[in-house]
Amino acid sequence: MDMAVKRNPSSDSLMDPRLEALLLRHEIETFNVRYANALDEQRLADWTEMFAEDATYVVLSRENHDRNMPVGLIYCEGKGMVRDRAFALSETAMFAPRYLRHIIGNLDVLGEERDGTIKARANYVVLQVLFDRPDATLHQVGVYFDVFRRENGVLKLASRRCVYDNLLVPNALCLPV
Amino acid sequence: MDMAVKRNPSSDSLMDPRLEALLLRHEIETFNVRYANALDEQRLADWTEMFAEDATYVVLSRENHDRNMPVGLIYCEGKGMVRDRAFALSETAMFAPRYLRHIIGNLDVLGEERDGTIKARANYVVLQVLFDRPDATLHQVGVYFDVFRRENGVLKLASRRCVYDNLLVPNALCLPV
Amino acid sequence: MDMAVKRNPSSDSLMDPRLEALLLRHEIETFNVRYANALDEQRLADWTEMFAEDATYVVLSRENHDRNMPVGLIYCEGKGMVRDRAFALSETAMFAPRYLRHIIGNLDVLGEERDGTIKARANYVVLQVLFDRPDATLHQVGVYFDVFRRENGVLKLASRRCVYDNLLVPNALCLPV
Repeated sequence: MDMAVKRNPSSDSLMDPRLEALLLRHEIETFNVRYANALDEQRLADWTEMFAEDATYVVLSRENHDRNMPVGLIYCEGKGMVRDRAFALSETAMFAPRYLRHIIGNLDVLGEERDGTIKARANYVVLQVLFDRPDATLHQVGVYFDVFRRENGVLKLASRRCVYDNLLVPNALCLPV
Repeated sequence: MDMAVKRNPSSDSLMDPRLEALLLRHEIETFNVRYANALDEQRLADWTEMFAEDATYVVLSRENHDRNMPVGLIYCEGKGMVRDRAFALSETAMFAPRYLRHIIGNLDVLGEERDGTIKARANYVVLQVLFDRPDATLHQVGVYFDVFRRENGVLKLASRRCVYDNLLVPNALCLPV
Repeated sequence: MDMAVKRNPSSDSLMDPRLEALLLRHEIETFNVRYANALDEQRLADWTEMFAEDATYVVLSRENHDRNMPVGLIYCEGKGMVRDRAFALSETAMFAPRYLRHIIGNLDVLGEERDGTIKARANYVVLQVLFDRPDATLHQVGVYFDVFRRENGVLKLASRRCVYDNLLVPNALCLPV
């Protein structure tokens, strides 16, 4: 029954560290899937809840990112600003007539810091179907540079920087990605 | 030697449930990869074998799915109809002159029911190269809504609903995805 | 403390083989992510280091691959030729004005041979942003057919055959993928 304790999920300090890494990766992968689904299904309130209270959420071009220029399409400091952005979109008539679909891949969990934050990155593609065009197009391609933090055991984004490759984002609106 | 039993793959009831979840995810991920390969390599008999005898296979638009309208591009009830579809394609001269390539991502295993069925979803992109155009294009983008079941230990699709975002699928033929 | 030995990562012969398979998959997935990042960030020296000394690196069309014709866009036998290719690119003025982004998915680890080599395959998409066009395009779509080998515990590519679906690769240059 010593073993029972060791196998208890809440007391896993004796688990092989490589399996721990797998579990963490799985957790972040699932987070990213649900993040994508919330956006693709326009559940923007659910999307907002995936951020920590003091989270940073930035969408900026690769060009500006590479030059350390902070100016971006979207800049939110704190969950309040993220919520405002979501609300603004839900009130915008222009948002509805398109479908979006995220594909998130190439996840790399870069490690857990001493303070419990987790750094990770992933590539993303957002595919778009406009209601006046029959085919899907590449809306945005880029990288998420992330910092995760656990709040009451649940993963939240302390920071997500979305760095897109496109030179122009083909949209009047600044959609979150 | 009590331990040996516990570590036996065929008697894993004492494994950490989080690791069980990882193994199940891995199994479904591998299923999806082989499903995609069977279609992309036109091994349609292999593709057929991935369905349960009483499986449902549906390809329908996001628009109809959202409105609960069942009409779709493809509707198969039972493996026999899936097999017919595969056979029809293999007899069709139009099928050959194109390459298809699936990318399946964003897998979310939603859990195992009491009756042993497993619900999952994943996003898919089908890329196409037509033999009279040099470049690849986005053929179809969508979501698989799946129910898996185990038959003699092997995963089979009890139901796959492919819900595509495209307003038009650029094809005279209704290719399975 | 018998247990401590069994849980030691360096002595995992008693680990459930299904978990071993998961760990191997994770290792290859991480390898592919870092391979993609090295190319996308133009760290071509890092990219070169991912190959074994006697590695084969080939980029060829699906058409030629299916007909067992070896002629390809790129053919490197040995790490020296891979390094030459990387150096040639870094000296080429044409390489800079574009962004590339790999999405690697549908990984299938086909198993470990007696000699320790590991066969795997994965689908890839390379998305491109040219500096004189605002939007991202599908640069190349295909499959990696891989053989991995461990050198001093580190995974290296003994062979990577990149088989692309596109009929034409829209590039004067032969970029590695």
